[in-house]
Amino acid sequence: MQALFFDVEPRLAEVPTPTPAPGEALVQVLLAGICRTDLEVLRGYHGFVGVMGHEFLGRVAGPPDSPLLGRRVVGEINLPCGGCDLCRRGLARHCRGRRVLGLRGKDGAFAEYLTLPENNLHPVPEAVPDEAAVFTEPLAAALAGVEAAGARAGERVLVVGDGTLGLLSAMVLGRRGLKVDMVGHYPDHLQLAAGWGVRAFLEQQAALEEYHAAVEASGSPTGLALALGHLRPRGTVVLKSTFAGTVPLDPALIVVPEVRLVGSRCGEFPPALKLLAEREVDPRPLVSRVFPLAQGPEALEYARQPGVLKVLLRPVL
Amino acid sequence: MQALFFDVEPRLAEVPTPTPAPGEALVQVLLAGICRTDLEVLRGYHGFVGVMGHEFLGRVAGPPDSPLLGRRVVGEINLPCGGCDLCRRGLARHCRGRRVLGLRGKDGAFAEYLTLPENNLHPVPEAVPDEAAVFTEPLAAALAGVEAAGARAGERVLVVGDGTLGLLSAMVLGRRGLKVDMVGHYPDHLQLAAGWGVRAFLEQQAALEEYHAAVEASGSPTGLALALGHLRPRGTVVLKSTFAGTVPLDPALIVVPEVRLVGSRCGEFPPALKLLAEREVDPRPLVSRVFPLAQGPEALEYARQPGVLKVLLRPVL
Repeated sequence: MQALFFDVEPRLAEVPTPTPAPGEALVQVLLAGICRTDLEVLRGYHGFVGVMGHEFLGRVAGPPDSPLLGRRVVGEINLPCGGCDLCRRGLARHCRGRRVLGLRGKDGAFAEYLTLPENNLHPVPEAVPDEAAVFTEPLAAALAGVEAAGARAGERVLVVGDGTLGLLSAMVLGRRGLKVDMVGHYPDHLQLAAGWGVRAFLEQQAALEEYHAAVEASGSPTGLALALGHLRPRGTVVLKSTFAGTVPLDPALIVVPEVRLVGSRCGEFPPALKLLAEREVDPRPLVSRVFPLAQGPEALEYARQPGVLKVLLRPVL
Repeated sequence: MQALFFDVEPRLAEVPTPTPAPGEALVQVLLAGICRTDLEVLRGYHGFVGVMGHEFLGRVAGPPDSPLLGRRVVGEINLPCGGCDLCRRGLARHCRGRRVLGLRGKDGAFAEYLTLPENNLHPVPEAVPDEAAVFTEPLAAALAGVEAAGARAGERVLVVGDGTLGLLSAMVLGRRGLKVDMVGHYPDHLQLAAGWGVRAFLEQQAALEEYHAAVEASGSPTGLALALGHLRPRGTVVLKSTFAGTVPLDPALIVVPEVRLVGSRCGEFPPALKLLAEREVDPRPLVSRVFPLAQGPEALEYARQPGVLKVLLRPVL
């Protein structure tokens, strides 16, 4: 089958179609999404070598006795060992020996087929269009961040960053009855957010207030200081951004106002699928462009341009 | 009256005995404690000018109709305005216009007398000796940190730092049924902690494990990295240390393991007084030395020496 393979450079390769291990299903990939983490893989993140990609929508193609055969599915990306202390304590997605689809020890979704444990797969309700379903993984991550913010309806929250994760977070926060301000870089992204009732500010024009909570999704070293600088005492900053390197942190900005900094990475799929099925959120306006898988390297190049939101790959055209 | 006054240098001064404002009591200071924050005042922290000191035990000396007249008391150090949005939201100790005893806009406890609103004062149960009662404020701060850690009985927690706040935190954590490890610098401090059942490690000999929670009370720029480096996924670091400058923070250490960093500054006095009254904790072994107030400048000099724990000032000898 055709796959977008990474070792030193990303390249299109002909690789064997994977064989599902016991408990696994074979999934034909219908659509896959390029995430910022994939772009970090290109810079050597985790030292990953293999088929890239972890955001996908697929259709179960085997084994023949799979209860999900023929169903459209999305899949959780962590493959825990099941036996370590963290797995036994219910922290499977932090399993010490975990493999991660397209990121650590497991070939990924930028291919015609992938395999995942059936336990990782979630059927997609019929009402959810393909191009919305492929956002399940980042939407679940955004939902987890919103939960971690712990803000209540009517409170004003800040989203720092107008990339895909920032925009998804703003969408979800708005649906929860929160008043959302966003600060970002790209007028067209901010205009999109403004269409959902978000007050959106260009970074240098920010008339920001003081917030109960902030979601830091800027992927920029200055985002954390901006969030902390506009937080009310005992507020919460949810940190979603990772990037190479460190940011300078003044501990007094945490200790004196007694604020919390909460790291958030992944989320649960079922609540994200529910939001999509009920049309509570529609992430399709975040699709910047769809490429055929055969143009995978060009798609990665396009995705790393400033201001590009979600880029999708379609193996079957 | 005699007082330890700070403007450019700390100096003993003869100042007028303060007159209580309406709602305030006049308190004769029996004992006062030197805190690391006082040493930061000497370096210009907050630009404070006035009578120093915020940890104290006193006896109410007026007004004559005070219901607390003649009682031994300790006092909460924050004087909120009562009218701002934060006060109205129950966040009075973060009041925007607050004065703070001996730290911001209010003369403090290194004096023969101080004044505080009667609402700030808590009578000290008879069972609590003077030299234990004077620890109420830092013990309350330690208790708040322990609450913020959110660990449960039987879980293993780490205390980083073997100063007064670290030792008080370890004492309280132990009383809560937690397994406590401590990493510090001073063999005699660590030996003290070992006497309470704490596993105590010198920094360079640390056989540290992985902890559900850590209390960072080292006052050192390296303490946070040490705490984060030994935290289990979804664990909590309580940050108590402030110091001038910044620490480098790798956001991936927060985001990927989904950990929390919680700032904690002050705590409630009643639970601290209860612990002292029930002899659940006895902080008196943490007293390094007692000076007469007349030797205040020498006491400050002594308190800033490495390895010194709590230094007390006694106005009446």
